[in-house]
Amino acid sequence: MDPRTIGVLGGGQLGRMLVEAASRLNIDVVILDKPSDAPAKQIQATKSHIDGDFKDPDRIRELAQKSDILTIEIEHVNADILEILSRENVVIHPSPLTIRLIQDKYVQKTHLSKNHIPVVDFLEVLSRQELMDAASKFGYPFMLKSKTLAYDGRGNYVVRSADDIEEALKSLGNYEKPLYAERWAPFVKELAVMVVRRANGEVKSYPVVETVHRENICHLVIAPAQINGLVLASAKDMAERAIRTLEGAGVFGVEMFLMSDGSIYVNEIAPRPHNSGHYTIEACETSQYENHLRSILDIPLGSTELKVSAAAMINILGKSGDFEECLRPCTKALATPGATIHLYGKKECRKGRKMGHITTVADSIYQLFERIGPIIKVIDEDDSSIPRTTIQPLVGIIMGSDSDLPTMKTCAEMLESFDVPFELSIVSAHRTPLRMVEYAKNAHKRGIKVIVAGAGGAAHLPGMVAALTPLPVIGVPVKGKTLDGVDSLYSIVQMPRGVPVATVAINNSMNAGLLAVRQLGAFIPSYLEKMEQFMEEQENEVLAKVGRLEEVERVFTICGIGTDVLDLKNGFNITASSKFISS
Amino acid sequence: MDPRTIGVLGGGQLGRMLVEAASRLNIDVVILDKPSDAPAKQIQATKSHIDGDFKDPDRIRELAQKSDILTIEIEHVNADILEILSRENVVIHPSPLTIRLIQDKYVQKTHLSKNHIPVVDFLEVLSRQELMDAASKFGYPFMLKSKTLAYDGRGNYVVRSADDIEEALKSLGNYEKPLYAERWAPFVKELAVMVVRRANGEVKSYPVVETVHRENICHLVIAPAQINGLVLASAKDMAERAIRTLEGAGVFGVEMFLMSDGSIYVNEIAPRPHNSGHYTIEACETSQYENHLRSILDIPLGSTELKVSAAAMINILGKSGDFEECLRPCTKALATPGATIHLYGKKECRKGRKMGHITTVADSIYQLFERIGPIIKVIDEDDSSIPRTTIQPLVGIIMGSDSDLPTMKTCAEMLESFDVPFELSIVSAHRTPLRMVEYAKNAHKRGIKVIVAGAGGAAHLPGMVAALTPLPVIGVPVKGKTLDGVDSLYSIVQMPRGVPVATVAINNSMNAGLLAVRQLGAFIPSYLEKMEQFMEEQENEVLAKVGRLEEVERVFTICGIGTDVLDLKNGFNITASSKFISS
Repeated sequence: MDPRTIGVLGGGQLGRMLVEAASRLNIDVVILDKPSDAPAKQIQATKSHIDGDFKDPDRIRELAQKSDILTIEIEHVNADILEILSRENVVIHPSPLTIRLIQDKYVQKTHLSKNHIPVVDFLEVLSRQELMDAASKFGYPFMLKSKTLAYDGRGNYVVRSADDIEEALKSLGNYEKPLYAERWAPFVKELAVMVVRRANGEVKSYPVVETVHRENICHLVIAPAQINGLVLASAKDMAERAIRTLEGAGVFGVEMFLMSDGSIYVNEIAPRPHNSGHYTIEACETSQYENHLRSILDIPLGSTELKVSAAAMINILGKSGDFEECLRPCTKALATPGATIHLYGKKECRKGRKMGHITTVADSIYQLFERIGPIIKVIDEDDSSIPRTTIQPLVGIIMGSDSDLPTMKTCAEMLESFDVPFELSIVSAHRTPLRMVEYAKNAHKRGIKVIVAGAGGAAHLPGMVAALTPLPVIGVPVKGKTLDGVDSLYSIVQMPRGVPVATVAINNSMNAGLLAVRQLGAFIPSYLEKMEQFMEEQENEVLAKVGRLEEVERVFTICGIGTDVLDLKNGFNITASSKFISS
Repeated sequence: MDPRTIGVLGGGQLGRMLVEAASRLNIDVVILDKPSDAPAKQIQATKSHIDGDFKDPDRIRELAQKSDILTIEIEHVNADILEILSRENVVIHPSPLTIRLIQDKYVQKTHLSKNHIPVVDFLEVLSRQELMDAASKFGYPFMLKSKTLAYDGRGNYVVRSADDIEEALKSLGNYEKPLYAERWAPFVKELAVMVVRRANGEVKSYPVVETVHRENICHLVIAPAQINGLVLASAKDMAERAIRTLEGAGVFGVEMFLMSDGSIYVNEIAPRPHNSGHYTIEACETSQYENHLRSILDIPLGSTELKVSAAAMINILGKSGDFEECLRPCTKALATPGATIHLYGKKECRKGRKMGHITTVADSIYQLFERIGPIIKVIDEDDSSIPRTTIQPLVGIIMGSDSDLPTMKTCAEMLESFDVPFELSIVSAHRTPLRMVEYAKNAHKRGIKVIVAGAGGAAHLPGMVAALTPLPVIGVPVKGKTLDGVDSLYSIVQMPRGVPVATVAINNSMNAGLLAVRQLGAFIPSYLEKMEQFMEEQENEVLAKVGRLEEVERVFTICGIGTDVLDLKNGFNITASSKFISS
């Protein structure tokens, strides 16, 4: 696709997945890394790679001579020599300036802060006095961090009280490496966005994901992040703005904190493909690896859209020296629909070492959790990462007043019985018109697929919401004290041409729930299956009653009692025994 | 994932994609093929491959010594030595017996026929007399074929009249290679199914795809095939039954003909990953390549389900010796969302040589055709492959009688304006109750996502259909001569608990169409966008009228004429000027 050879500093798993993407495009890649059997070198047999340190100026120069473009798969490279080469007109992406800026987390934070990207409060700590100042400014706990060479939790220390200070300093090298302090961020979720920036300046970002870390190492990634879609949009925007402040092309991982009030802080940026973007190989239209190549080659970027409804990435970390043990989740993954295993070809297994990952895709977030649950359980039986996430609703149930709740709650119960995530709220067309506009205008942006609206009397809510949202709206006419609900029915069903409301029977919010499930089921196979099951059970239930009724009739005939005088209801209580059937 | 080494006879693009899948699972693969830079060898640097002919007994024996399991990526190998090795307990998949059976297309057809798999009539042709017998039995045109070494159109001849016979015989080697004749199959579509069979006997199949050949070489694959879902199911079943008759594990490509009456014939079987299954890499939960590995290793098979709504694969064939020219569709693909390019690393470009392929995924079949159209156009400007396929409907419009058509046709027009594929039919609850049951029970299996049912009077159709299908049903009450449509409205909307119908206003089938689009749009982003556009246009249209009305009022005020005496309708014809708005 392109005759240029790309030289990569580093030959780990990120380099390996970069080579995989390059091979598909027939793009030549040369790897610089110490081991001759580094993961990236194993799957590229047409080039002679370089065995050497990616900090060694001579080896980097040798790589530059073999390549047309240099890039990195790890940021802890030798930025000095890259700057020199850059001045000699070697094409390097991202820019050595960016690599240097990111290597020092204090400089990185200062840069972001100056560019109006929200970051958690931080202070440089060059002395004990400055450390005590930080403690008194931030309170306990706070973070003490190395400015450089900090990753996967190395170089970070949580100072929980004044008693921790000595230990923290010792652990971080007693100012031998420069330090800074950071206010504690009691985030509700960690988010990440992969952003790709083409050499010509074009920027695109992947969906916002949520990441779950364990012992400071990425454990689980869920795409899309199960947060309000408006917060998603602002996280995406912030990540793109942050990357626009940096120089050079490539993909960048932007890690963020989501606070309980919905505000977001950028935590740190990785100037390369990132663990939180592995999922893009199976779940997005173009992977982060291919887009990294496209961006540094300055050819059109691929689409960053999800092509599946939901995806999760689970890291396979070494537990001990035992490779077999860390393969156990993979064995489970082999039997999991939608799961793809990636092993990195690393020979030696060490505790905490990234040996591989598993990406699982699904047709809904519910199906995703059903699929990944058993895999996560193999990794750690008392794992708590899944319960930590909340699921975003697919259905919004709204009603004009809490007096409609007794009618509308059957809809909620129905959705619950089908495992459909929903939200329930009061939105009144007449008393909170602005709230109604806001709700209807944003529901689809937040991830809602169907809106169920209940209203009585001059029942304007369903129709007004339908006039504002592109989503299907199901209307439930709620029966008032006069007119037997016909007023509500006509108000809801007799919409003008151009604005449809899917109207169900008066007071029948159960059917509204079932209609919502059918709408989801047309696209989410697991809900279609459940609907077929439900219909079968419903049929069996009635058939069982037919059987019982025939039994009764036989008894009547024998006793000579006419059925017309029998109180069937008290005798057999047919309607009460059925949860679903009545007319 | 598995310590066994797999030896592959053949190192072309199929072997290359097999190696790619194996690397992800850390499974070692050794390749036997003549070129030292064969496509499959280029991306496997940890093993020493064998440079030699995959028909050479010594080289095959050498491969067996280096491997734990042997498999093939091309069927034209040396089956004799494989049979000998098999007797020496070398594990070979698929079984050498199967490979031998498939190598001879006449034997293959006889085998399928004996096993009650429908194939087109065929006759052995060993002499001129037998050839004339075949001609008189089958009539013209008929196919004359080589029994062996026939692929990509080589070894096939279309005998259009008695005049062609000499040329056909000459072209096929004058009985030097054994021949057979086949009745001409005037198929409406060519279908293919990839079937995977595990060593333990388990069989799974991928979705049925349609294939478009040009000059006997696969040009385009569309998944899923745009044919009736019930025909899809029977094609899948037939493909699985065919593979169950064969021995050994692996994936198999089953090529079929679909006739105009819906009947299906198996054309031929490939005992290996197949061109019609390339799309599975991006579009299915587990690719054909990974499932080939899993099946021959006898570990659990991965899911064969589609993970996207639609996908297409376009082959990149050499046009001449000019590599640049055949890269032109790839350049277009770089700018196409959802497109992934696979180039095979072949150095030499020849006419008809498979240099790579492009797989494109999409959220709907319409979006798919929008995406691939420009790529196909680059390959051939007068290309006719896309118009040859019909699109399966997403919406079913039904009505009880043709007297409902004037009302219901607005729904159809609406769907058409949104590019939603639909079908329209008469299904009466009262006059064709069995047809109604058949329709409702199968609609979701045929690929329908929403049913719109219109009915008047004792309007039973929508509710009865809803009682039989798990899909959402939209009901349109059609106004009759008495009761002003209230009879139909009540019949449709007042459904009992358990069976919902999404009811729209009396006679308002336009809204039924819009509601169907909204239901699709909740899951198909391209329809959501179109709905947002539609709503904006609708708003602008009304606002324009507001403007005109204000203009009118100003004129009135100037002239001193009261608005109450003005015939607005005749003067400005507001309702007639709007396609969409009325009340």
